[in-house]
Amino acid sequence: MTAAQPAQADRHPYDRPHLLDRPHHDGGPMHVPDGVPGLGDRVPVRVRVPAAAAGALGDDGVVVRVVRDGEPRYAVARPDGHDDVDAWYVAEVEVHNPVTSYRFLVADPRGARWLTARGLTARDVPDDGDFRLTVHGRAPAWSRQGAVYQVFPDRFARSPGAAARPVPAWAEPADWDAEPAAHGARTGRQLFGGDLAGIEAHLDHLERLGVDVLYLTPFFPARSVHRYDAATFEHVDPLLGGDDALVSLAAAVHRRRMHVVGDLTTNHTGASHEWFVRAGADPAAPEAGFYHRDDDGFVGWLGHASLPKLDHRSAELRRRLLEGPDSVVGRWLRAPFELDGWRVDVANMTGRHGAVDLAHAVARAMRETLAQVRPDAVLVGEHFHDASADLAGDGWHAVMNYSAFARPLWGWLAPEGWSLPEVPMPMPRRGGAAMVRSMVDFASRVPWAVTAQQWNLLGSHDTARIRTRLGDPALVEVAAGLLATYPGAPMVFAGDEYGATGVNGEHARTTMPWARPDRRDERTFAAYRSLLGLRRDARALRDGGLRWVLATADAVGYLREVPGERVLVAAARGPWSGVVLPAHLAPSGAVQTLHGPDLTHDARGIRVPGDGPFVGVWRLA
Amino acid sequence: MTAAQPAQADRHPYDRPHLLDRPHHDGGPMHVPDGVPGLGDRVPVRVRVPAAAAGALGDDGVVVRVVRDGEPRYAVARPDGHDDVDAWYVAEVEVHNPVTSYRFLVADPRGARWLTARGLTARDVPDDGDFRLTVHGRAPAWSRQGAVYQVFPDRFARSPGAAARPVPAWAEPADWDAEPAAHGARTGRQLFGGDLAGIEAHLDHLERLGVDVLYLTPFFPARSVHRYDAATFEHVDPLLGGDDALVSLAAAVHRRRMHVVGDLTTNHTGASHEWFVRAGADPAAPEAGFYHRDDDGFVGWLGHASLPKLDHRSAELRRRLLEGPDSVVGRWLRAPFELDGWRVDVANMTGRHGAVDLAHAVARAMRETLAQVRPDAVLVGEHFHDASADLAGDGWHAVMNYSAFARPLWGWLAPEGWSLPEVPMPMPRRGGAAMVRSMVDFASRVPWAVTAQQWNLLGSHDTARIRTRLGDPALVEVAAGLLATYPGAPMVFAGDEYGATGVNGEHARTTMPWARPDRRDERTFAAYRSLLGLRRDARALRDGGLRWVLATADAVGYLREVPGERVLVAAARGPWSGVVLPAHLAPSGAVQTLHGPDLTHDARGIRVPGDGPFVGVWRLA
Repeated sequence: MTAAQPAQADRHPYDRPHLLDRPHHDGGPMHVPDGVPGLGDRVPVRVRVPAAAAGALGDDGVVVRVVRDGEPRYAVARPDGHDDVDAWYVAEVEVHNPVTSYRFLVADPRGARWLTARGLTARDVPDDGDFRLTVHGRAPAWSRQGAVYQVFPDRFARSPGAAARPVPAWAEPADWDAEPAAHGARTGRQLFGGDLAGIEAHLDHLERLGVDVLYLTPFFPARSVHRYDAATFEHVDPLLGGDDALVSLAAAVHRRRMHVVGDLTTNHTGASHEWFVRAGADPAAPEAGFYHRDDDGFVGWLGHASLPKLDHRSAELRRRLLEGPDSVVGRWLRAPFELDGWRVDVANMTGRHGAVDLAHAVARAMRETLAQVRPDAVLVGEHFHDASADLAGDGWHAVMNYSAFARPLWGWLAPEGWSLPEVPMPMPRRGGAAMVRSMVDFASRVPWAVTAQQWNLLGSHDTARIRTRLGDPALVEVAAGLLATYPGAPMVFAGDEYGATGVNGEHARTTMPWARPDRRDERTFAAYRSLLGLRRDARALRDGGLRWVLATADAVGYLREVPGERVLVAAARGPWSGVVLPAHLAPSGAVQTLHGPDLTHDARGIRVPGDGPFVGVWRLA
Repeated sequence: MTAAQPAQADRHPYDRPHLLDRPHHDGGPMHVPDGVPGLGDRVPVRVRVPAAAAGALGDDGVVVRVVRDGEPRYAVARPDGHDDVDAWYVAEVEVHNPVTSYRFLVADPRGARWLTARGLTARDVPDDGDFRLTVHGRAPAWSRQGAVYQVFPDRFARSPGAAARPVPAWAEPADWDAEPAAHGARTGRQLFGGDLAGIEAHLDHLERLGVDVLYLTPFFPARSVHRYDAATFEHVDPLLGGDDALVSLAAAVHRRRMHVVGDLTTNHTGASHEWFVRAGADPAAPEAGFYHRDDDGFVGWLGHASLPKLDHRSAELRRRLLEGPDSVVGRWLRAPFELDGWRVDVANMTGRHGAVDLAHAVARAMRETLAQVRPDAVLVGEHFHDASADLAGDGWHAVMNYSAFARPLWGWLAPEGWSLPEVPMPMPRRGGAAMVRSMVDFASRVPWAVTAQQWNLLGSHDTARIRTRLGDPALVEVAAGLLATYPGAPMVFAGDEYGATGVNGEHARTTMPWARPDRRDERTFAAYRSLLGLRRDARALRDGGLRWVLATADAVGYLREVPGERVLVAAARGPWSGVVLPAHLAPSGAVQTLHGPDLTHDARGIRVPGDGPFVGVWRLA
């Protein structure tokens, strides 16, 4: 069998050895003005073209294509200044539709190339990777720019009052230092007895770590320790201290200028929920319409009869749960609780059942309630899966970013044959280029404004602990380095900073080792603290665009840039070849180490060493 | 600057030299049972794995992932037979959602790979390329399996009665043999005088060519020869012979067991339309709500005041235009006209204006009217652009397939620097691998059932003629060969079969050279006739799946397969290396030439020669 090798032009740009020799655009402030555009606005968008290439392009070498009411329109971009390194072109994009997509066509001696959020391609590619401007408001700045700390209340800290509370019949009290069960019915019953006052007593820890958004998994009464089977949405579980404890915790959080986000199941309730009890008792009750049914009766989420699935076709359900200040969504955002937003459980499934798909309607209804009640609140969906179809910007501000961040990262840093419990086949180790291409592919499906406010994570109460997933603490530091410097908000599952372990989500719900210094990996804590702290001082890490500079099997790197600040991040999973980056990235010759090793640099270049595993962060000026 | 080359595993599969050594699945009848599934059905889907690879896989080496209510579920596929060439695996997909997406994870010594409609990938890829089953009904068999002939009525044929009709004030009569203007206001005014009776008189030509679906561009009265500026939707333009001429033409078409499709603008009307006249005269008239307005008054489509844009928020507009047997859509499908469906003008824009997006609602409303009035009718959108977001299967059955067929094909076969009038930059010539990857990428965004019923084309009354685009008649034959053998229905713009020329859409609206044998390229006609005729005898070309076997710079090839029949298509744009395909593709050793050169074949393989340009079609048995 014979057949010619494909032309170089057909290769994906991120397969090529270096990534700075090509035109670039992203939604960051180097390329798109800050702020949310309105319908009808004309937004100047800028493309950077390496000067060497720009010479061949000429003044009309960049064309913008804007899709308007489904139809593309083309216009030639204007030159907009240049230096020895880059030439800039600018085009105006009229925001005619709420989400307006655009891309560029860049002249090239080998034939014009498309520049989309997927990168530079030498052939026609579908629109789903186009750049996008959205008129839908952004997540609040505190959420975009902060760092999120996930707390599973039963496992974080016990207050002195916790021991006195009666143990409910479903629960099995566990010793604080015991290892949580990984499998079986016990997983939901093992009551370690953490409570909200316990959390309040440890806010210093959050501050020392450098996180400023507290995300609590559910606090409603239930028949399990995870509480995703709510018995009511009316009050806080007395096991956690009741409503007063939440009022106190929220106030303490706010006094520290931190924020607190709750966790709501809009997809289902517990079978013990007061609505479901009424639905079962009285077919004429309004609640009888709150739940999906099929020929076999009420539909359980994923077949669990204990978790009846809510049917958002019911206007009364939407009114009670989602809509307006007095709904469940609205009430907890108001005094005396003043939650700063919601994380929504299984947001990928909520409102979806067979031929019914109200997921976007649910998200938009919640978003409207936020806007009415607490405009500075955030709405984040749990979404283990490709979330792009649910992230146009008008519903969830963001999702827990498994698909565009955690999963590609696991595939790069975990050992060969790592596993996901839901997948009956070992997962392969992928090269850095594959990780980058997956991150780019998934991110390219959503507006940049969404990527810049995603809640990135390395794991959660639903996954293996990152320490267990990767094994080597040095690799965990690499992962934390990418977490802390990638666009979006880093989210840390409490305990990761101390090197907690766990083979799956249940097993990962470990208690915090407050009284057990032997169980605290202080080196890991120091790495997390250093890395999370970088975001405070470097605006480029909070608000900057993203330019990949390196994507090889064992090492990746990128620039985060805002006008006046450029930060370089490089990470390796093991020893590699090292790289010499162009000296012009630090025009004044200043390379300030923010984390990791110092770099050697001179007029011939900036040398990133071939050590590994390592992660480094440097400010180039 | 240094950086390692990416691993082979990161390369797109279609970049590799040969394409038969990998697992394959498509929506064709080798892999998915024929027919439209219903909600709740469990559909067995089969994957083919080369036997050599399957040995290493074992019995549990293929996993299916099905997305259900937004959540993926995984299951191990079962072995389902094998021979020396292929091993088969089968998995059941429950059609829980109206469009249910699925993909496979295939074990591999280098690490598991995803198999999606984009091909085999060694990294995580978004869902948009997943395989899809849809419960939405398919286009009628006559449309899927037939060949479409596009007629622009003013330019096809004059009947004896045409000369006697008065010329309207807006028109400039033109001599039948004159060359249409390519630019300027004259393009819409040059009245060549073709009419419906003229078409009826030439149905023998359609039959001889081998087409059996007549698609007419608009026949409503207007102020232009293209008639996309309808003055009414109530009757046929008297210039074309009026209603009686359409009744007669449709009856004649049906007597030949052929079908006839009309052309409707649901996006706009002409400014002379009776609705718009009333809207302008009386703000209280119901028609006043039929049109979009902005601060400057009525909105013209693309800014043309002569083409006011319809506002589908008006229920009365939807009722009159779209909904039910008495709507415009419905009425022309009924006696005495009995049109067999509609092609919808600028379907990509219809219903879309700024924050209003009713495009899917418009398409679904039309589809429902078809189902009520004429269930065997077809609904095809004009869509120059990426149509995937509009092709879930519940609205347009299909679109004029520019993005997933014509444009990639133009980029492969047109000379370097070919042009599209809307793009202010020359277009590059792309290699065959780039063409295939673009076709695969665009097709992977829609259900296979939609790809299998697209209206593929080489050009239309809105583009340059394919003869002018490609130059060389031998390349036109290559293009026609792909057109006639690719999944979906081939659509021919009348005149292409005689080698008509035209530099753009206006210029391409040439008259048919009935009386000018010197203007008829009979070799091209013979090639079209031969190629279109293949579909009649080879079920694989009408209903088969699609397996790419070859994608190099200068040559491409694929298999179309149904149980019991395998057809090989190969095409080259110039001399190339040739290829030896495995002998097992024709297990009995029979290679029947359907079009093009005979192949040499023996136990060592099937040799496709390195000649070119050429296109060949062979039945392998």
